[in-house]
Amino acid sequence: MRGAVLYGPRDLRFEERDMPAILKPTDAIVRNSATCVCGSDLWPYRGINPVPQAMPMGHEYCGIVEDVGSAVKTVKPGQFVIGSFATSDNTCPNCQYGYQSSCEHREWISTAQAPLLRVPLADGTLVPTPEVPSDDMVPSLLALSDVMGTGWFAAHAANVKPGSTVVVVGDGAVGLLGVLSAKQMGADRILVMSRHDSRQKIAREFGATDIVTERGDEGVARSKDLTKGIGADSVLECVGTQESMMQAIHATRKGGYVGYVGVPHDVELKGEELFYAHVHLHGGPAPVRHFLPELIDLVWKGKINPGKVFDLTLPLDQVAEGYRAMDERRAIKTLLRP
Amino acid sequence: MRGAVLYGPRDLRFEERDMPAILKPTDAIVRNSATCVCGSDLWPYRGINPVPQAMPMGHEYCGIVEDVGSAVKTVKPGQFVIGSFATSDNTCPNCQYGYQSSCEHREWISTAQAPLLRVPLADGTLVPTPEVPSDDMVPSLLALSDVMGTGWFAAHAANVKPGSTVVVVGDGAVGLLGVLSAKQMGADRILVMSRHDSRQKIAREFGATDIVTERGDEGVARSKDLTKGIGADSVLECVGTQESMMQAIHATRKGGYVGYVGVPHDVELKGEELFYAHVHLHGGPAPVRHFLPELIDLVWKGKINPGKVFDLTLPLDQVAEGYRAMDERRAIKTLLRP
Repeated sequence: MRGAVLYGPRDLRFEERDMPAILKPTDAIVRNSATCVCGSDLWPYRGINPVPQAMPMGHEYCGIVEDVGSAVKTVKPGQFVIGSFATSDNTCPNCQYGYQSSCEHREWISTAQAPLLRVPLADGTLVPTPEVPSDDMVPSLLALSDVMGTGWFAAHAANVKPGSTVVVVGDGAVGLLGVLSAKQMGADRILVMSRHDSRQKIAREFGATDIVTERGDEGVARSKDLTKGIGADSVLECVGTQESMMQAIHATRKGGYVGYVGVPHDVELKGEELFYAHVHLHGGPAPVRHFLPELIDLVWKGKINPGKVFDLTLPLDQVAEGYRAMDERRAIKTLLRP
Repeated sequence: MRGAVLYGPRDLRFEERDMPAILKPTDAIVRNSATCVCGSDLWPYRGINPVPQAMPMGHEYCGIVEDVGSAVKTVKPGQFVIGSFATSDNTCPNCQYGYQSSCEHREWISTAQAPLLRVPLADGTLVPTPEVPSDDMVPSLLALSDVMGTGWFAAHAANVKPGSTVVVVGDGAVGLLGVLSAKQMGADRILVMSRHDSRQKIAREFGATDIVTERGDEGVARSKDLTKGIGADSVLECVGTQESMMQAIHATRKGGYVGYVGVPHDVELKGEELFYAHVHLHGGPAPVRHFLPELIDLVWKGKINPGKVFDLTLPLDQVAEGYRAMDERRAIKTLLRP
């Protein structure tokens, strides 16, 4: 089988890889109906995260269960399933508190840009859909594997409630789905920081009421102007840089909430600044597994359509072009069909 | 009138200062029934915070209203009042959200170690007691001005609920009152990190169930042993150093809450570490004004006795000895009687 392998900065190859196999009795093998490229894949692709050796890529997936190990009880071959980028046993204390992405037995999925992948801890990780979905629903179901679950967690961590005023920092796929999540949770006003026409358009479709094109301190000042001068109730940080994190904290009102899901790169928060900011801070790797049943239900009933963030669809063997298009910001998010 | 003035490291003098006067129509003058020395007063006293010029000291106070400005409507001469270290108009948006210590018109009280002090924004800052209290109730009422309100906010920010497992980092007056607060809020198990017999004794009186004498990583390991290996639901950070902050974060379970009220000194939180810690973080200068009515009621009805943290009482003119005793850890907290 052929799959994506990253060799170094901007050196992404589609090449022969070993066929995945059941290694532990709790494993499952999933045949991907679709997979995709994540914003976080661009960190190593751009050389910002080191690539010490050739790395298979991909952590978003959905498809048909092909095989299961002897200890797998609830997941069955033939089912259409979605799983998170983080595996979970769904029974340990962290899982029971709803933090499956900090499961005591967590493994990170990292081989999903391929026709088939091995998913450890299948019973605790994979959630089947009610039936095998129609093909047009696949993009929205695939989005649940990471970006939609992550945007949803950001809104959740930022305590979005009916009537809330919300700022979303970041107009990548996660930020856009943060907008959709905030809308779905009943937010009254949703500001999104964006400079790209195509992204602004989707943000508006998802429920954004205001677009802030300024960045940094100017972006904060503009968002404060739009939130009665005091800042937003809830701010979703969906980038992961020092600038975006400080922008998020400064755009929040006293006593408001920052939900941060951008994987931090060289971010340092000064204790004193945080102290006087008086905000609530929560975030981390989204516990996608926790939200999957609810989100599958919303997609299944047609209440949300997160698959709209895929503005480029390619056959899997063109995965390298999928990375390039996102790197050059020609695409928001690339869906890959094996 | 004579009051406390800090000239430099360990150079605290009790000397002639100007009598306070009504400067603005919203001011009140309060005659202190008692004042005290705060743990945070020790930062400049020890030279850790710079003392660029002679500074009058003190921000905790309660007593009888002596005079009010022409615009003061609710506070009246003769009333016994308690106020916060941070003044507030109690009407601005930040105040209305319950964050009076971030009032848009906030001033810091800094002249309270004296017989009389001026309190700006009297109507929004001072809360009268039902009647003039008996003398033995004064220490507990004085504690509400800062330490008790701060310990209470720490527990509140750390989401302490009936049945919670709680860790308190710090056995100073705020930490001890964090124990009392957690107990009052229904915590089931309360671990306090302490190495001092006298403080452990008060902690136990206030409701601590376990004492952790280890520090740093060992303290974290010990507290995890005592919390099913996963960490506490709620951790109160009541010190403000890098070590104490990291100890608090690491002692918290995934999805748990850190309430931090120790004024941070050279604290820096690494984004990546915070991200994977998966904790909720909230804190800052306690909005004491928000909690005063509730806390006065609890003291008035004898349900809490936070005045127990004062283990040294001196006449105000011995304020220098009051600082020395706390600096040398001979006293937890010094009450001063004018």
